[in-house]
Amino acid sequence: MYDRQAARKAAENLKSLREKKPLIHNITNYVVMNYTANILLSIGASPVMAHAQEEVEEMVSIAGALVLNIGTLTPYWIDTMVKAGKKANDLNIPIILDPVGSGATGLRTDSARRLIHELSVSVIRGNASEVLSLADKSSKTKGVDSIHSVDDAAEAALFLSSELHTILAITGQVDLITDGKRTYRVSNGHALMGFVTGTGCAATAIIGAFLSVDGDAVTAAATGLAYFGLAGEIGAENAKGPGSFMIASLDALYNIDERALEQGAKIQTG
Amino acid sequence: MYDRQAARKAAENLKSLREKKPLIHNITNYVVMNYTANILLSIGASPVMAHAQEEVEEMVSIAGALVLNIGTLTPYWIDTMVKAGKKANDLNIPIILDPVGSGATGLRTDSARRLIHELSVSVIRGNASEVLSLADKSSKTKGVDSIHSVDDAAEAALFLSSELHTILAITGQVDLITDGKRTYRVSNGHALMGFVTGTGCAATAIIGAFLSVDGDAVTAAATGLAYFGLAGEIGAENAKGPGSFMIASLDALYNIDERALEQGAKIQTG
Amino acid sequence: MYDRQAARKAAENLKSLREKKPLIHNITNYVVMNYTANILLSIGASPVMAHAQEEVEEMVSIAGALVLNIGTLTPYWIDTMVKAGKKANDLNIPIILDPVGSGATGLRTDSARRLIHELSVSVIRGNASEVLSLADKSSKTKGVDSIHSVDDAAEAALFLSSELHTILAITGQVDLITDGKRTYRVSNGHALMGFVTGTGCAATAIIGAFLSVDGDAVTAAATGLAYFGLAGEIGAENAKGPGSFMIASLDALYNIDERALEQGAKIQTG
Repeated sequence: MYDRQAARKAAENLKSLREKKPLIHNITNYVVMNYTANILLSIGASPVMAHAQEEVEEMVSIAGALVLNIGTLTPYWIDTMVKAGKKANDLNIPIILDPVGSGATGLRTDSARRLIHELSVSVIRGNASEVLSLADKSSKTKGVDSIHSVDDAAEAALFLSSELHTILAITGQVDLITDGKRTYRVSNGHALMGFVTGTGCAATAIIGAFLSVDGDAVTAAATGLAYFGLAGEIGAENAKGPGSFMIASLDALYNIDERALEQGAKIQTG
Repeated sequence: MYDRQAARKAAENLKSLREKKPLIHNITNYVVMNYTANILLSIGASPVMAHAQEEVEEMVSIAGALVLNIGTLTPYWIDTMVKAGKKANDLNIPIILDPVGSGATGLRTDSARRLIHELSVSVIRGNASEVLSLADKSSKTKGVDSIHSVDDAAEAALFLSSELHTILAITGQVDLITDGKRTYRVSNGHALMGFVTGTGCAATAIIGAFLSVDGDAVTAAATGLAYFGLAGEIGAENAKGPGSFMIASLDALYNIDERALEQGAKIQTG
Repeated sequence: MYDRQAARKAAENLKSLREKKPLIHNITNYVVMNYTANILLSIGASPVMAHAQEEVEEMVSIAGALVLNIGTLTPYWIDTMVKAGKKANDLNIPIILDPVGSGATGLRTDSARRLIHELSVSVIRGNASEVLSLADKSSKTKGVDSIHSVDDAAEAALFLSSELHTILAITGQVDLITDGKRTYRVSNGHALMGFVTGTGCAATAIIGAFLSVDGDAVTAAATGLAYFGLAGEIGAENAKGPGSFMIASLDALYNIDERALEQGAKIQTG
């Protein structure tokens, strides 16, 4: 039922990550900076947050991946993301974009689209509403209001992924990852994740770390999400609410080893 | 002794909040953004932080309340608050102001006063020193140095509330809420709350969420403070210090149900 | 083996801190603002974060120490630090600098050096790589690449401390504190501290608080680091990973009393 090869890949990626301890450069929102840094440390990566236009090119040059997150955007921060992203593209450093709140305001939708058009982005990670808002008017993608099931979302994601020439990771009760051809579904996770701010952003950062060790961005995204979801499942076992869940999940990310990840990853093909 | 009707109102407000899951728009300080978002998620609300002048009017238009907090203010952020606040006033969306550090520097006092004068603010939540610093020179309000008891504070608050045409929620060992006519005192809470940063700001955000479901801002403030204080009491029961207290309080906010809140709320009239 | 006098000094400093509850003014990075504030509250100090150029002089004037941290610097923030720092120097308020990431980008190295040259800084706290990057080309200090042991680091620190006319606190498995003449080594701490973001910044803030109660900046730094490291040791005893460690360490900082600190401090002279 679950894809054994994908589960093995998850374990391999985790092993590589802990050996290489890649520097992950985050240009992200104020709300989640601390939590994201702790997430990345817990999995074995090395986080840095830097947003000054005077240093982002130099900083991204020594990074294994660039995480762009528009959660508390201003035009200055978007300009910074473009600058860092162009340098990352020049150096073939993978970029992941989290279009937080795209669709909610014009600034967010326009900024997310600008980043996609000016940069070559490996993966976009968001919820269905955010990701589908990225389709422009000429898109054949159904709007988010017509998405009533995981299958609807999968169909829309396939279209949009091809149009945007990027991999989409749409997270929800079941996560969908597609490059327009291959599709994975990840069913790890727990409902308490919705009661902790920045879990979506954390998922994005973890995929970013996996992109730095896995040249196949589709499997990087699927395996990263399985790992994070599994930590949520383990964290929830002893949690008494969202506070203790947040803490227990950080512990779980740190404690999950390759074997546990291979056994616990719920990744399906197609 | 405790006001049974107010306690029932607290339970009703909590029920409404969890049904409506209102979006709460926060323009707040960097220190507490993450904690505030987690507080709002734990109680059942939906937080958003957005401060770009290009989007705050659009964002607040879809919100149930606007929380303004000057904790790490700059003139740009105050301008943003005015812009968002005017839109909120146009749309009758309630505003709560947290004048963090007002009285400590001229920038803070002046900025807090500017917000009060340019906007129609439903509630101001602060400690006695912050709130009483908002009185101008013509005020009949006693200065904070002459406040030696809860009764002194109550008297000063009654004057100032009438002068500022807004509801004041002065938090301390006993919280005072008044609109210049009606007064409530809330005695829920725990001393460990003073050892966690942002508990005052969290109280403000919770009142903001309650304002979005309770048209009577006096009861919204009193019941919101009782709820937060009760979570502090429960959190302290198993806490070993400020770290575990912070986590246990988040769990408690999530776990307190209507019945527990009605039984635990310590709200007095007058 | 351990310096009993230094351990007693640690206990005295902790006692003074809890009696005086000094206001510590932090101009620090976004990632650690919340954690730093909670650290300072847990030890008994009173934190404030303020970075607007319009208020930093006024704010620092009422503070017991100024903590400057360049973790998410921009030129605006560095200008602010200079402004606040000059006022602190005028008023003989001690300054501690955390040159986060100095050596990693030109902006960071140049900004850290600018702060050192324009301000009189009591203590610089960083890891070996950050601190040794502060040496200019004429320095006799060995580069970080030639540091292979604690003794190498100690030798380099002695040179650099004299050249920069400031006290250096180089943290690592063993912390080194020197003013170019006297040297202390602190061996408190735990490996999990490296898996929580902002522990270095927290060490800096704690030293800042100790500077406000101990006129001898060398002992302030050594005793502050012993206290923080001891909290890490105690926190690790019951931790299940980095999340629960972070929380347990905050609890430990709050619970450690003078006697426990005097007994647990592992400070050596020379």
